[in-house]
Amino acid sequence: MFNLPRGTRDFTPEEMEKRRYVEHHMASTIKSFGYREIQTPTFETLELFTAKSGDAIIDELYSFKDKGGRDLALRPELTAPVMRFYVEKLQMEPKPLKLFYFGNCFRYDRPQKGRYREFQQMGCELIGTSTTEALAELIALAYYAIKNTGLKNIDIRIGNLDFLNQQFKTCLSEYYPAGANEVFRLIDKEDFNELHNQFDNYGIPEEKQKKFLGFLGSNNINDLKKYIQVKDLKRYEEIISILKNDYGISKIKIEMKIARGLDYYKGLVFEIDAPILGAEKQLCGGGEYDLVEQFGGTDVSTSGFALGFDRTILALETENYTFPSYDIEVYIIPVNETTIRKSIEIAKNLRKEGILTDMDLLRRGIGKSLKYANSKNAKKVIIIGPEELEKNSVVVKDMKSGEQEIIKISNLINKLKNN
Amino acid sequence: MFNLPRGTRDFTPEEMEKRRYVEHHMASTIKSFGYREIQTPTFETLELFTAKSGDAIIDELYSFKDKGGRDLALRPELTAPVMRFYVEKLQMEPKPLKLFYFGNCFRYDRPQKGRYREFQQMGCELIGTSTTEALAELIALAYYAIKNTGLKNIDIRIGNLDFLNQQFKTCLSEYYPAGANEVFRLIDKEDFNELHNQFDNYGIPEEKQKKFLGFLGSNNINDLKKYIQVKDLKRYEEIISILKNDYGISKIKIEMKIARGLDYYKGLVFEIDAPILGAEKQLCGGGEYDLVEQFGGTDVSTSGFALGFDRTILALETENYTFPSYDIEVYIIPVNETTIRKSIEIAKNLRKEGILTDMDLLRRGIGKSLKYANSKNAKKVIIIGPEELEKNSVVVKDMKSGEQEIIKISNLINKLKNN
Repeated sequence: MFNLPRGTRDFTPEEMEKRRYVEHHMASTIKSFGYREIQTPTFETLELFTAKSGDAIIDELYSFKDKGGRDLALRPELTAPVMRFYVEKLQMEPKPLKLFYFGNCFRYDRPQKGRYREFQQMGCELIGTSTTEALAELIALAYYAIKNTGLKNIDIRIGNLDFLNQQFKTCLSEYYPAGANEVFRLIDKEDFNELHNQFDNYGIPEEKQKKFLGFLGSNNINDLKKYIQVKDLKRYEEIISILKNDYGISKIKIEMKIARGLDYYKGLVFEIDAPILGAEKQLCGGGEYDLVEQFGGTDVSTSGFALGFDRTILALETENYTFPSYDIEVYIIPVNETTIRKSIEIAKNLRKEGILTDMDLLRRGIGKSLKYANSKNAKKVIIIGPEELEKNSVVVKDMKSGEQEIIKISNLINKLKNN
Repeated sequence: MFNLPRGTRDFTPEEMEKRRYVEHHMASTIKSFGYREIQTPTFETLELFTAKSGDAIIDELYSFKDKGGRDLALRPELTAPVMRFYVEKLQMEPKPLKLFYFGNCFRYDRPQKGRYREFQQMGCELIGTSTTEALAELIALAYYAIKNTGLKNIDIRIGNLDFLNQQFKTCLSEYYPAGANEVFRLIDKEDFNELHNQFDNYGIPEEKQKKFLGFLGSNNINDLKKYIQVKDLKRYEEIISILKNDYGISKIKIEMKIARGLDYYKGLVFEIDAPILGAEKQLCGGGEYDLVEQFGGTDVSTSGFALGFDRTILALETENYTFPSYDIEVYIIPVNETTIRKSIEIAKNLRKEGILTDMDLLRRGIGKSLKYANSKNAKKVIIIGPEELEKNSVVVKDMKSGEQEIIKISNLINKLKNN
């Protein structure tokens, strides 16, 4: 008896059908915006991830050595691999370059509810432009990629790391010689109690604390104008205006508390939530970032987002979304051994027409076979007996109504397709 | 500058489109036979693979330890994981159970032409039946799964490990106290020179050598009758007859030299080749096997096959198959900044209709934008200028004919969909 490795999952046919359905709708939306799929290996050199996120990330990675003694790691995310690919092979492509990916990622932490050691991400990277319409399109795409799966309630929160850095500089930097990381880590965790304590310990004057926290609490453009100059606000404001007015997306929040992975994000950042999921509500994170130069490429504007595939499915389930079923359309039962070969031929011809067809492979008789067909939610059953076959006919039973009809074999496909 | 790990690959958009196309056609065929998809983790406990294939396999695996110190390995194939899943969670499902998978596998050997350290396999497992019609359907499915991708020339070779074992017993076993493995390994490699040498070294009488090699060379039922009793041949003969007559598959060869992984295969075995690929022609391998009891489950008939996904694509390319293209349908060019927001709105509406739409995000003017649209093989370009907009119209340019037309915005979707 062998067990599933801790923190990983097997997916049943029912679960896979949900996953493929969501994958299909996300990918279709992303492709309709002109993005094209790429794929990178499941593992990369360890240094790719430490260069991007620092050595601290090693503890969260599955790493191992290859035959040449080189350190490798299962990828924890896909932005670094995609940027490595871009720098190695795609820099000469016409800009902008719109790339998307769908792949499994790995995280070496303690398994907990809704967090697995292997999980899937779909994401987009936009390379070569940073106009307002480009950023607005990227955020709209992330929104529609989730929305078009059928999820009803989602919110977009849009932040700006330039504003956050600017406020840190004005209010706090003289008290934090080690830089903003300590502060931003607490903001990212939304641990405001600890932030207050830290401010008091560091001796930040009350006025400056108040100003910084006031900025963090801003949730509309007029509030923001108290802290940020109008000329600096213009781009941010325009992007939100395009999203609201041209894309017609109403559920947008201004949110200065987004402080995601400051090592390479910059400028505009955004997150998308499914509030129905409570504390683990975040489905998507993205924004503008800098990685290309660090990876040895020529500087270029880059932005992107990653969608949490598993959480999107969880959100749909929580909203009681009705996923489509992929049941057998026709189940064929040979009445006895003499009709098996004719049954095979009929099954072959139905499948050629794209009809999802299964047949009894156990010679178990009509009663048991009907029971099996029922357990598989088959829509129709075809019973193939020697007497009907002599008249080139078969019995077709509708499993919902229970009605039976004798149909000529030559008319079978026609009959099944028009039902 | 970071590099791709040795032996692995990045896939460009063009390559991914081919891969998704082949995946789609293989999966559609498999689903039309009543199979349903499952998924297992990318890594398993190391002992799962050593239990199935012996300790020798460790050298060919990527293995590492998890936080609990347990040995894990990236999966080299998917039959063992699927059987682990079956024994753990699916034994109570109605039989027969038809499962398929598509996933990446990993092999830790020296990279060479057409062999990669990470590769993809699609495969099927049939659990709970071993009737002639069940085995014939499985082989027909493997054939159609490849054939329906568009590949023209493929051969099926069908062998039988019961026959092979029987002949080994009759002719050779008294000279091989350590069992058949040594002989079968050479047969599997088709190294007949070495096999002859070994026979001579072991002092096998010429008559017995001749008989065994005569059996191995059999390529029709009449030949086989010289070695195997008619009653033992019946099932094998019937399966081939169903494939030839009921499924209409002509390219079937009787082949006693298939000696695949004898540790768990038994009975019927088969391989499918694309002869155009030369020495590396094998696209598929499968047959009946025993693993469930060894994995702690209740004994049940099992058979299956795995398709080499990468080689199928290579074979299609070698046959110069014309893969479909997934080019941009409409590229939108705002003539200047005043028409950007209207352009966004039109792009949004076209995408909503499922039209693959991209738009200029760089404000680079008509000339450069047309050049870009051309480099992306866009079918139509919509040029949005202030004068036409005043009349609620836009210019639509057909990129193939070069013709331009002024179209009312209200009539745009209609026009584009009927073209």
